[in-house]
Amino acid sequence: MRALVLDQRVALREDHPLPAPAPGEALVRVLKAGICSTDLELVKGYMGFRGILGHELVGQVVALPAGPPPAGADPLPLGARVVAEINCVPPEAPARSAAERAQDKSRTTLGIDRRDGAFAEYVAVPLVNLHPVPDTIRDQEAVFVEPLAAACQILVQVAIKPTDRVYVLGDGKLGLLCAQVLAAASAADVLAIGRHDDKLALLRRRGIRTARADDPIDAASADVVVECTGTPGGFLRARALLRPRGTLVLKSTYAPPQPADGAAAHEALSAWQRALVQLVIDEITVVGSRCGPFAAALRLLAQKRVEVLPLISARHPLTAGVQALAAARAKGACKIVLDIAEPT
Amino acid sequence: MRALVLDQRVALREDHPLPAPAPGEALVRVLKAGICSTDLELVKGYMGFRGILGHELVGQVVALPAGPPPAGADPLPLGARVVAEINCVPPEAPARSAAERAQDKSRTTLGIDRRDGAFAEYVAVPLVNLHPVPDTIRDQEAVFVEPLAAACQILVQVAIKPTDRVYVLGDGKLGLLCAQVLAAASAADVLAIGRHDDKLALLRRRGIRTARADDPIDAASADVVVECTGTPGGFLRARALLRPRGTLVLKSTYAPPQPADGAAAHEALSAWQRALVQLVIDEITVVGSRCGPFAAALRLLAQKRVEVLPLISARHPLTAGVQALAAARAKGACKIVLDIAEPT
Repeated sequence: MRALVLDQRVALREDHPLPAPAPGEALVRVLKAGICSTDLELVKGYMGFRGILGHELVGQVVALPAGPPPAGADPLPLGARVVAEINCVPPEAPARSAAERAQDKSRTTLGIDRRDGAFAEYVAVPLVNLHPVPDTIRDQEAVFVEPLAAACQILVQVAIKPTDRVYVLGDGKLGLLCAQVLAAASAADVLAIGRHDDKLALLRRRGIRTARADDPIDAASADVVVECTGTPGGFLRARALLRPRGTLVLKSTYAPPQPADGAAAHEALSAWQRALVQLVIDEITVVGSRCGPFAAALRLLAQKRVEVLPLISARHPLTAGVQALAAARAKGACKIVLDIAEPT
Repeated sequence: MRALVLDQRVALREDHPLPAPAPGEALVRVLKAGICSTDLELVKGYMGFRGILGHELVGQVVALPAGPPPAGADPLPLGARVVAEINCVPPEAPARSAAERAQDKSRTTLGIDRRDGAFAEYVAVPLVNLHPVPDTIRDQEAVFVEPLAAACQILVQVAIKPTDRVYVLGDGKLGLLCAQVLAAASAADVLAIGRHDDKLALLRRRGIRTARADDPIDAASADVVVECTGTPGGFLRARALLRPRGTLVLKSTYAPPQPADGAAAHEALSAWQRALVQLVIDEITVVGSRCGPFAAALRLLAQKRVEVLPLISARHPLTAGVQALAAARAKGACKIVLDIAEPT
C-alpha cells in the first residue's frame, strides 16, 4: 500500500506492506488524515519514532477481529465510518477505559510511539479504540476529533468556573481548538492570545475575544492559562500571566530546542529556575494535559458548537505527503489534511 | 535593641532601633525563633532582602494597637504568648483570610520581603497575624508552627486519599515536618526519602516508613511526591518517581544554583526541557505550595500528633546569631533555635 514513512527522513512508499491486524484489532481504510504539529516534531526527532506517521484520521472499517467485540468496544459493522483513539494497549490487557489506556505503561501510540499510523491507505487499530462517526459530521471535520478530544481533556482535568478568566496562549491548530472548546463548553471569560490576525479572526467570528501576543495584557490577570504555543518560552509567558494560585495547563509536546551557545543556555536555565521558585511563591498549579474523550469531541462537532473547517489551510493527496508536511511547516499554515480515499 | 541584620552580610547589632508598630500592629517581644533554610537562602541573595531576618517565632504581646481589634483578629491580652503568620497586608486593606493575605499583591513578608523579622528582641506584627499559643505547647515547640502550617498547606491544596502512596523527598527540616503532617493527618501510605539515617530515624520512631535516596525505588510508583530537597535536581527526581497523572508538590524556595559552565548549563537546560514535555505526556500536576493554616498546625502540636523537639540540633542565644546561622548551614544540621528571651 501507499504510506508516508519516517525512517531517518520522511518518504512516500508505494509498496509498503499492508498492516496485519493483531487479535482484537480492526483494519481501517483511511479516508482522510490531519497533520499535527506533533508529526512535525517527530520528523525533527521527537520520541525517536520510526514508521508510518499520522494519528488524526477518519476511516472505514474493512475487517473486524474474530469473535464477539471486547468489553467497552462500540458494536461496529463493516464499512462503518470511524475515528480512532491513539493509545493502544495489547489485546490481552484487561479492558480499560480510554483514560486508563492513555496512560497505560504498555501502550503504543498510533503514529507516535512504536505503532504505525494513519498516513497510509490502511491502518490497524484495536477495536476498542474506534468510535463511529455520525452522518452529520463530514470527513474533513472528523479528522479534527482527536485534537478536539485533547482540548476537551482540559475540562476533564481542571474545573473551569463561570467566574474564571481563561487565556489560551498560541493560535496554532491546537490553540484555536482549545479556545473554541473552552468557550463552547464552559461559561468562563475566554481570551485567545496569538500572533496571527487571520487565525484569531476565526475565533472572533464565533464571539471569542482575542488579543495579539504583543498587546499589553496585565500580568497576573488570568485564573487559568492554557499553553499551546509549543515553545519553552510559552511556559514562561503563561506563568507571568497567571494570578497567584492560578492554573497553568500545558498542552504541547515537542522536541526541545537547543540554545545557541553556553551563554544562551545559562540565561535560559536561569529563567527556568526562577520560574520554578516562583511557582512555589505564587502557589501555581501546573497541569500536563494530553489525550481526551472522543465522545465529547464528537458531541461538540455534531452539535455545531465548534467550527473546524476554516482551520483547513490546504488538502493534499497522500501521494503529495512529503509536500504536505512541508506545507504544514510553512509560516502561517494551519491544518493540512491528507485526502487518502473516498468513502465507498 | 539587639537584632540579627542582613545588609550585604549578616551582623549582630546591639543598638538597632526598636520597631515602631504601624496602625493595626502589635509589638511582640520575641521569646524564641527558628532558623529556616529560607533564611540561609536570603543570606545567599534570595529575594534581595535587607533587614532583620527571621520568620519562625514565638513571642509575647507587649503593646496592642489602639481601638477595637480588627475583624478576624483573635482577642489578645497583653502578655499573651503568640505565634505569627508571616504575610502582612497594610492595615487599610480590607480584612482578609490568612490564605488571601498569603497571596495579596500588597503583602510584605516577615523577615523575607520588605519587613523586619524576628531575629531580634522585638518585632512588630499586624494583630490579625497573631495566634495565641495554648499552654500545653512549649516555646521551643511553638517555633515550629510556621513551617508546620506550611506542611499543612499541602493538605489544603491536594486531596490526599487513603489509597494514595505519598513520597516526601528530602529529610531536611521541612521534609521531616511534611512527612509527619501527612502521616498524621491523612490515611495515605507515606514514605520519607532522605540522605541522613539519623534524621530518618526520627520518623521511623513514629511509625513512618523511610528509604535512603540511593535505595532502589520504583520509578512511577507514587501518587503524590512532595519535593522538599530545596534543589533543582529534586524536581527531576520527584517527577521520575511519580506515576502518570500523579501530583508533584513543590515546597522549597531557594536561590537557584549557577551551573559551572556553558556545557553544564546546556545539560541542565536539556533536562528541564525534557522534564517539561514529560509533564504533558504523563499528565502530571505540579502544585506550588507555600504558607499554610496556623490553626491546624497548633492543633496537631497540641494533640501531640507531630513531634518537633527531636528536630532541634542546637539552641543558641541571639548574641551568637551569626554562629547560629553557620551552625544551621553545617552538614547534617537540623533546626537551630535562637533563645532570645524568657517569658515574663
